[in-house]
Amino acid sequence: MSLLVVGSIAFDSVATPFGERRDILGGAASYFSVGASLFTPVRLAGVVGEDFPEEHIQLFRERGIDLEGLQRVPGGLTFRWAGRYEGRMDVAETLETHLNVLGECTPSLPERFRETEYVLLANDHPKNQLAVARAMTAPKLLMMDTMNLWIDHNRDELLEVLTAVDALVCNDEEARSLGENTNLIGAMKTIRECGPRIVLVKKGEHGSIVLMDDRFFALPAWPLEKVVDPTGAGDTFASGVMGWLARQDRVDFPTLKTAMAYGTVVASYNVEAFGLDKLRTLRWGDIERRYQEFIRFLDLGLE
Amino acid sequence: MSLLVVGSIAFDSVATPFGERRDILGGAASYFSVGASLFTPVRLAGVVGEDFPEEHIQLFRERGIDLEGLQRVPGGLTFRWAGRYEGRMDVAETLETHLNVLGECTPSLPERFRETEYVLLANDHPKNQLAVARAMTAPKLLMMDTMNLWIDHNRDELLEVLTAVDALVCNDEEARSLGENTNLIGAMKTIRECGPRIVLVKKGEHGSIVLMDDRFFALPAWPLEKVVDPTGAGDTFASGVMGWLARQDRVDFPTLKTAMAYGTVVASYNVEAFGLDKLRTLRWGDIERRYQEFIRFLDLGLE
Repeated sequence: MSLLVVGSIAFDSVATPFGERRDILGGAASYFSVGASLFTPVRLAGVVGEDFPEEHIQLFRERGIDLEGLQRVPGGLTFRWAGRYEGRMDVAETLETHLNVLGECTPSLPERFRETEYVLLANDHPKNQLAVARAMTAPKLLMMDTMNLWIDHNRDELLEVLTAVDALVCNDEEARSLGENTNLIGAMKTIRECGPRIVLVKKGEHGSIVLMDDRFFALPAWPLEKVVDPTGAGDTFASGVMGWLARQDRVDFPTLKTAMAYGTVVASYNVEAFGLDKLRTLRWGDIERRYQEFIRFLDLGLE
Repeated sequence: MSLLVVGSIAFDSVATPFGERRDILGGAASYFSVGASLFTPVRLAGVVGEDFPEEHIQLFRERGIDLEGLQRVPGGLTFRWAGRYEGRMDVAETLETHLNVLGECTPSLPERFRETEYVLLANDHPKNQLAVARAMTAPKLLMMDTMNLWIDHNRDELLEVLTAVDALVCNDEEARSLGENTNLIGAMKTIRECGPRIVLVKKGEHGSIVLMDDRFFALPAWPLEKVVDPTGAGDTFASGVMGWLARQDRVDFPTLKTAMAYGTVVASYNVEAFGLDKLRTLRWGDIERRYQEFIRFLDLGLE
C-alpha cells in the first residue's frame, strides 16, 4: 500500500566526532521517504525553496517517490538546520535553525494524496498536523511524530491531534514530558489514554518500546560499534516501521513487532554514514540480510 | 552447584519518591545472596560489625545461605550507606558512606569455600578481589563487579583483576569509562580484550547487553510502571544470571541468554519494594511465572 509522509525537507549542516558535512539533504520527510521507499510506494508532501537543487529531486525520483506534493516556493529558501553531536552522540546540539519557507507556508495536499491509507505526520506544528489528519479520507494508520517545543508550548493543540491519530512516535524524553511521568511505562500509558492506540518510543542506542492497546513490546538496538551521524535515526526507524506495515497492509500487534525490527534495521544503516549517504545506495537485499542477522541476535535460543 | 559471593553487607538508608527507610539490610552481597538463593545453594563471605542484628542473620538462614564466611568484628560497626533517588531514579545520589569494618578488615575465606565453582566478586577494592580470585582452586565462572572509584583511581590494579576473571558485570557508564569509549559496543570489546570472555552490562530501565567471546546479545527490561526503590537492582540482576548458570552448571552462550532473562526477572521484583522487602518473601514459583511472562513479552511472534 502507498505511504504518505508530510514533513520537513532541509539543508543540514552536521558535525560529529567523525567529521562534518555542510548543506546536505536532510529533514524528517527526506529521511522518512527515502527509508520507506525500500518497502513500499511513497508519496511525499513538503515545501522547499527555489534553492533546492535538482540532484535531491533526482534522488527522490530514483527511489520512486511520488513528488506531486513537493511544493517549490518561488524566491523562497529551503529550511536549514545546523547541529553537532559530541561524546555519546545521543543528543544533537542545535547550532542554527532557519525555518525559511517552513515558516511561510504549509504544503497543499494533492487531492489524490488524501486517499492514502498509511500516513506519517512528521514533526510539525500541531495545527498543521491536525489539518492533514482531518484531510485524509480513509486512513488505516495515521502516525504522528512531535517534539518538546510543541509539548511545552502547544500542549492543548497537541492533545487535540492525539485524538485524531492512531499512533504517536516520539523519543523517550518527549514521552516522559508529554505523559508527565518520569517513569516511561507510566508515561506511555497516559499518552495512550489521550487517544492513540499505539505509542511507539525511540530510545536510540537503547532500542525501542511500544504500547499497543494494553500490550507492551520492546527491542534492543542493533549493536553498532561506530555511529558516524545519528541524524535521521528516529525518522528512518519510523520509516521502517510504517514501511513494513504498509507493505503488509496490516496493523496488528505481531506485524507491528516485525515492523519495529525492520525500523531498527533501517535506522542502524542510516547512522553508519553522514546524512543519506548510506540509504541512498541501500537495496532491499541489504535490509533483508541485516533483518535476518537482527532476528538471530535477538534469539533467546529456547526450544 | 554452589555459588559464592564475596562482598559488602550494609545498613542502608534510602529515600525515593515513594518513601524512605532507615538502617535497612543492604549491601551488594546481601542483595546478591538472597536473590541467588532462589536458584542454587549460596555461600556468603563478608564482614559485619557487632551491631549487626540477629534478624538479618535469620533472613540469610531462612534462605539456606551458608554463613561460615560471615565475619562479625567484635566492637566493630557495620558498613553504612545513605542515598536518595529522584526524578527518573536512574542514579543514586550518595548522601553518606561510613565504611566502618569494611575499611578495617577483609573477610577470611573459609577453606572449603575456596572450592566453589561459581563465584561473584562484588564491588570492592581490586586488590581484595584479586586475592579472592587467586584463592579459588577450581572456578568454572569467576565474575566481578566494580565501580567508577576503582576505574578512575586504581585502573592498573583493576586491569590485573580483569586478567584473572572470566566475566565482568558493570553498568553502562562504568563500561564506557573502563573501555575508554563513549560507544558502549566499542567499550565492551575493549574490556573483553583486557581478559574476561564475558562482559555483561546493566542498563537499568533500558535492559542489559552482553558480549561473550565475539557474540552480542541484548534484552530490554521488564516494563515496570512503578519503581519503588532501585537499590540492589544491579546486584539482584547479577544474582539471577549467576544463579541460573550455577543451577544449570553450564557456562555457554545459550545458557547465558536465559540467565540474563532470569536476572531481569529477579531485579524487576526487587525494585518493586524497599530494600529486600520483596525478595525476602519471593518463591521460585514467582520467578518462574514472571520468567514465562517475560519470554512472552519478548516474543517476536515469528513462525
